[in-house]
Amino acid sequence: MELLKETCRRIAPLDRAAMAEARARQDELTKPRGALGRLEDLSIHLAGITGRPRPRLGRKAVVVMAADHGVAAAGVSAYPPEVTRQMVLNFLRGGAAINVLARQAGARVVVVDMGVCDPLPEHAELRAVRLGPGTRNMLDEPAMTAAQAQAAVEAGVRLADEEAARGLDLVATGDMGIGNTTASAAIIAALAGATPRQVAGRGTGLDEAQVLWKAQVIERALARHRPDPADALDVLAKVGGFEIGGLAGLILGAAARRVPVVLDGFIAGAAALVAAGLCPAARDYLIASHRSTEIGHAVALQALGLRPLLDLDLRLGEGSGAVLAFPLIEAAARLLDEMATFGEAGVSDRDAAAESA
Amino acid sequence: MELLKETCRRIAPLDRAAMAEARARQDELTKPRGALGRLEDLSIHLAGITGRPRPRLGRKAVVVMAADHGVAAAGVSAYPPEVTRQMVLNFLRGGAAINVLARQAGARVVVVDMGVCDPLPEHAELRAVRLGPGTRNMLDEPAMTAAQAQAAVEAGVRLADEEAARGLDLVATGDMGIGNTTASAAIIAALAGATPRQVAGRGTGLDEAQVLWKAQVIERALARHRPDPADALDVLAKVGGFEIGGLAGLILGAAARRVPVVLDGFIAGAAALVAAGLCPAARDYLIASHRSTEIGHAVALQALGLRPLLDLDLRLGEGSGAVLAFPLIEAAARLLDEMATFGEAGVSDRDAAAESA
Repeated sequence: MELLKETCRRIAPLDRAAMAEARARQDELTKPRGALGRLEDLSIHLAGITGRPRPRLGRKAVVVMAADHGVAAAGVSAYPPEVTRQMVLNFLRGGAAINVLARQAGARVVVVDMGVCDPLPEHAELRAVRLGPGTRNMLDEPAMTAAQAQAAVEAGVRLADEEAARGLDLVATGDMGIGNTTASAAIIAALAGATPRQVAGRGTGLDEAQVLWKAQVIERALARHRPDPADALDVLAKVGGFEIGGLAGLILGAAARRVPVVLDGFIAGAAALVAAGLCPAARDYLIASHRSTEIGHAVALQALGLRPLLDLDLRLGEGSGAVLAFPLIEAAARLLDEMATFGEAGVSDRDAAAESA
Repeated sequence: MELLKETCRRIAPLDRAAMAEARARQDELTKPRGALGRLEDLSIHLAGITGRPRPRLGRKAVVVMAADHGVAAAGVSAYPPEVTRQMVLNFLRGGAAINVLARQAGARVVVVDMGVCDPLPEHAELRAVRLGPGTRNMLDEPAMTAAQAQAAVEAGVRLADEEAARGLDLVATGDMGIGNTTASAAIIAALAGATPRQVAGRGTGLDEAQVLWKAQVIERALARHRPDPADALDVLAKVGGFEIGGLAGLILGAAARRVPVVLDGFIAGAAALVAAGLCPAARDYLIASHRSTEIGHAVALQALGLRPLLDLDLRLGEGSGAVLAFPLIEAAARLLDEMATFGEAGVSDRDAAAESA
């Protein structure tokens, strides 16, 4: 528990001085004030996160955490569990959506086996954490033990440290795990105070009857294990997943190192709620990339107080939405850093003129 | 008139065969069908535009057309007219928002003087077309002659040809011109059948009384010159701007060469309505990048039948929103081209399994 407590202690508030300096510079840049809209706010947020008035985000990574879910046996996914492992192999060969997007964005892809059913071959970009051959089926028993939940989060913290050591200015959460929208929905229901019906969605492609069954599975699991909403680790243990715990730890570890964390979609929302439950200060380090079509995502975003940058009807996971938002986030930082000021460019500044008049 | 007519004749419908091939490939890629949402539709649209089932968009440009507006004398802008020229110099020195965004996106910036009040110094990336020292004040007289309107559009067509000769897979519209939201609002009112109050917005930062005055200016100009909504060149001549005409021509020229055109915001919307008025088939070649905070933009997008990719409260112009969307558009094309199929990756395809059962 020491690593977790220590990490949470290291998560500082946003750097107000850096933010004030960034805001002052924004108002000097050659454009009408506010004309870059949300990118201006984002640039100031990045200054507060990084503590640098002109942040640069050159070194980027997406950490894709994979694990299997015992609850998949309850028939809550459109795909069979072996797809988790097959897709991890696809990530390692560079053929998945996240590989294409990361190549384009200039980000590295780090794949983590948090507990896929069958072990994977060794690979330079694969980290084997493996807390078990998937979680247990939450319909029958808690998804994991309290010790596993803690180990999952701590593994995420350590991974953030390792990646920071390689150089890390911006990190995205990625996820793969057949059954993980069920675990995420259960976490969001427990931590955001929503009903299973409000957060159980179509996942990779369920029909309406299957979605209803998924909501029932979540309802039964919550009724059976009664996770304590004030104890995010307890919620994670009883209805969560290894990769969700790992991502919560990644968020905490990145926040402790002042690295902005770009959340992907629904599973990232569940992980962020766990992270914020463990350490509310971590919330300030989050950037929501996109609004997923998975219905419960809006519930998670609202509970986190986040407004996503993109709304493109995505529902893939893998970190795809987060990495798609990388260029926007980098643009916000580069505009702040690279644009000329009115003074430098010799452009008449209406506002300055009005103020000095 | 020959160049215009000939260009319109060359604008073909979307290539349905390429689209069908792209759609078939999308359904084979290692992801649940539809999970990439609007990026899937966009990739198929790009296939239809380019006529290539796996389009690549490596060579990118933003064409920033600049001109002054006589109506600026009526007090419809928060900035003085000399800012147009100052900002063009800023573009040429690389200090404006569009330069930063284009550098990041790997796009070249082509600046066109369509008629800035005072001539600009020579520069490798500056094209001097100069149809006059700004337009006339539409409050008193038509903004330009019919011959100037035609020359503006034809200059845009020629520019598309020149840029295509340099290599062009994706082009964005950019604009600079103090007073050009007034001209654009007047065009949109005339061509989309809206009232001046519905399309007159805050521009670079007017207050409410100034916006009301701007709407009155537009109302008087439309009442005085009675542009014919069925004749887009007439509308352009009476209440438009040189850069708006140039962008309309750029759209037509790009469409004739099967190059996708990414529209920036409000001024681009006016130019696109002129282009679609001259040649309705050009509409299929348009991609709307973002929803501007300028109130009349929604009117233009609706009239064009376009849904923008981004909604980031931008209101800068210069092509900034369009170039911000470049990475999303490129991502759509690269995902289609580079992702592995289920067969290649050995991943179980639920849909194929269900269909063969």
